[in-house]
Amino acid sequence: MKLATLKDGSRDGQLAVVSRDLAGAHFATGIATRLQQVLDDWNFLSPQLEDLYTTLNGGKARHAFAFDPRACMAPLPRAYQWADGSAYPSHVRRVLRARGAEVPATLLEVPLMYQGGSDDFLGPCDDAVFADEAFGIDLEAELAVVTGDLPMGTAPDAALEGVRLVLLANDWSLRALVPAEVGSGFGFLQSKPATAFAPVAVTPDELGPAWRGGRVHLVVTTHVNGACLGQVEAAAGMHFHFGQLLAHLGRTRNVRAGAIVGAGTASHDDEAQGVSCLAERRALEMLRGGEATHGWLRHGDVVRIEVVDGLGASVFGAIEQRVRVVGAAAAAGEGGA
Amino acid sequence: MKLATLKDGSRDGQLAVVSRDLAGAHFATGIATRLQQVLDDWNFLSPQLEDLYTTLNGGKARHAFAFDPRACMAPLPRAYQWADGSAYPSHVRRVLRARGAEVPATLLEVPLMYQGGSDDFLGPCDDAVFADEAFGIDLEAELAVVTGDLPMGTAPDAALEGVRLVLLANDWSLRALVPAEVGSGFGFLQSKPATAFAPVAVTPDELGPAWRGGRVHLVVTTHVNGACLGQVEAAAGMHFHFGQLLAHLGRTRNVRAGAIVGAGTASHDDEAQGVSCLAERRALEMLRGGEATHGWLRHGDVVRIEVVDGLGASVFGAIEQRVRVVGAAAAAGEGGA
Repeated sequence: MKLATLKDGSRDGQLAVVSRDLAGAHFATGIATRLQQVLDDWNFLSPQLEDLYTTLNGGKARHAFAFDPRACMAPLPRAYQWADGSAYPSHVRRVLRARGAEVPATLLEVPLMYQGGSDDFLGPCDDAVFADEAFGIDLEAELAVVTGDLPMGTAPDAALEGVRLVLLANDWSLRALVPAEVGSGFGFLQSKPATAFAPVAVTPDELGPAWRGGRVHLVVTTHVNGACLGQVEAAAGMHFHFGQLLAHLGRTRNVRAGAIVGAGTASHDDEAQGVSCLAERRALEMLRGGEATHGWLRHGDVVRIEVVDGLGASVFGAIEQRVRVVGAAAAAGEGGA
Repeated sequence: MKLATLKDGSRDGQLAVVSRDLAGAHFATGIATRLQQVLDDWNFLSPQLEDLYTTLNGGKARHAFAFDPRACMAPLPRAYQWADGSAYPSHVRRVLRARGAEVPATLLEVPLMYQGGSDDFLGPCDDAVFADEAFGIDLEAELAVVTGDLPMGTAPDAALEGVRLVLLANDWSLRALVPAEVGSGFGFLQSKPATAFAPVAVTPDELGPAWRGGRVHLVVTTHVNGACLGQVEAAAGMHFHFGQLLAHLGRTRNVRAGAIVGAGTASHDDEAQGVSCLAERRALEMLRGGEATHGWLRHGDVVRIEVVDGLGASVFGAIEQRVRVVGAAAAAGEGGA
């Protein structure tokens, strides 16, 4: 099934079921008002939502309305955890080599993963607001999963069974702030501002045969100002599957229902597929022996990220965000409730 | 006022107001059931809780009951954000020098801060469960604050005005896992398992003159198996105040109500005060020219952390946790819902 969270002025929005073709929606009122509620009590509530989904797809839901992605918050507008892996070796190798840094010897054995902020996610069509272009504004198109409860030490295969939902994300990154934070060893903090998510969260079964081996066998398409940046196979270059990423996160602690785990920027060794972030495009330019000619994002730039299925239908709906650079002083007046 | 969350079998527990002397408590039923609700709507709900607190302290709350810290979850059993600073230069200097690592040149200008997991906090008397003693099990006694909404770019002084609650925490750490995670640049993940919190969250006014300059002017006392590890002044060695830590976190993004920000392991240059974690005790042993003679925590060890006021009364109640090492196989059966 497909689920979305509609803006209603509250912090957590209003849960809705969305039709398979993304044309219609129906509030989940009477079942649950918030997506986290459903994740907290999945076995009881999700079958009721599935029933509503079937009715909606059959055109028989009495209070259905037209689905508008611009009215969406992130499916989980705030979450209790967001941990982002880096499961694509081609992404890590390109970026590190271009920087002259060493590629870790354990790249293929131990997933790289950072803990992200999860208190203030962006909706799919929300402006992405930054104080300064000098931060080096970049997108990162990637897939993520939402999990149920996983006890500490859950093995990869069992962890995969805990996947409740699949998401499409834009993990905004501020490249100029990365070196100092990586250098400190404490990891990304200011360099990873609010992450955005596509309008619709989908259950793995919704992906059909495209969900196998803990990966999404579809293509992530990214445009910047209408120009295609990449059409990247999301499964082929993904070395660690989602069960392995979840197991890595849960090695020393319980992972609780509603935690989101990302696979990192989708990437593939085949350069003809393009890339899913500007850092990798710049890295490729440098590795080809030249200088990086493309800069970072500027005020007014528009980023669009989408995944379509074998029939050309959008799976998660599109992320389509405009970059808004407001200056440091104005930033303090933006966005807070 | 003082607030606690009592276990009731649910994920978020039941909100209660606790008397100043920690003797009695009263459910906040009719006002709010969960602490996050109060943080989401602070200006409306907190005055109602303050009224109940006054009634409770006056001995006139009709349904008051004896307060039992062992029945407590963390005040926020799960939170939308936990970011932990390292505001005590003496802690950083000792640990890094003992390791032979360089102390960052920006130590006194830019706070070190890592993003922690916040989906599964431990209550004050919950066992701390680990799979393996070889992980290098350590405690970290520290203070933290819970904030209201802070828009991106909020200045330190304004951020300090957003502080809603003060907490006492035990930031469990797995020292043997730290070098690889710090070395990767992606920061702490497996090396920072579930953090525990003292039973009671207090509003800053509750601290009286001990809350000034964005710091808590009281002593953090830590015992391991009944032996005193440290009696450390929490304010004197704290270089960055809580407003500065919050502003650091919010430089590139909004910080939303209910985010928890820690000051890092309480520490002071005066070695007579002792320490608030074993890593620092071992560092001091090494810096005195010898080897570290004290090991890490073992199965069955008991850690106790408390802050008392000028009259000797416990402010937050005590954290008192037993270390339980269960082996990797058993860990997968522990704790998950």
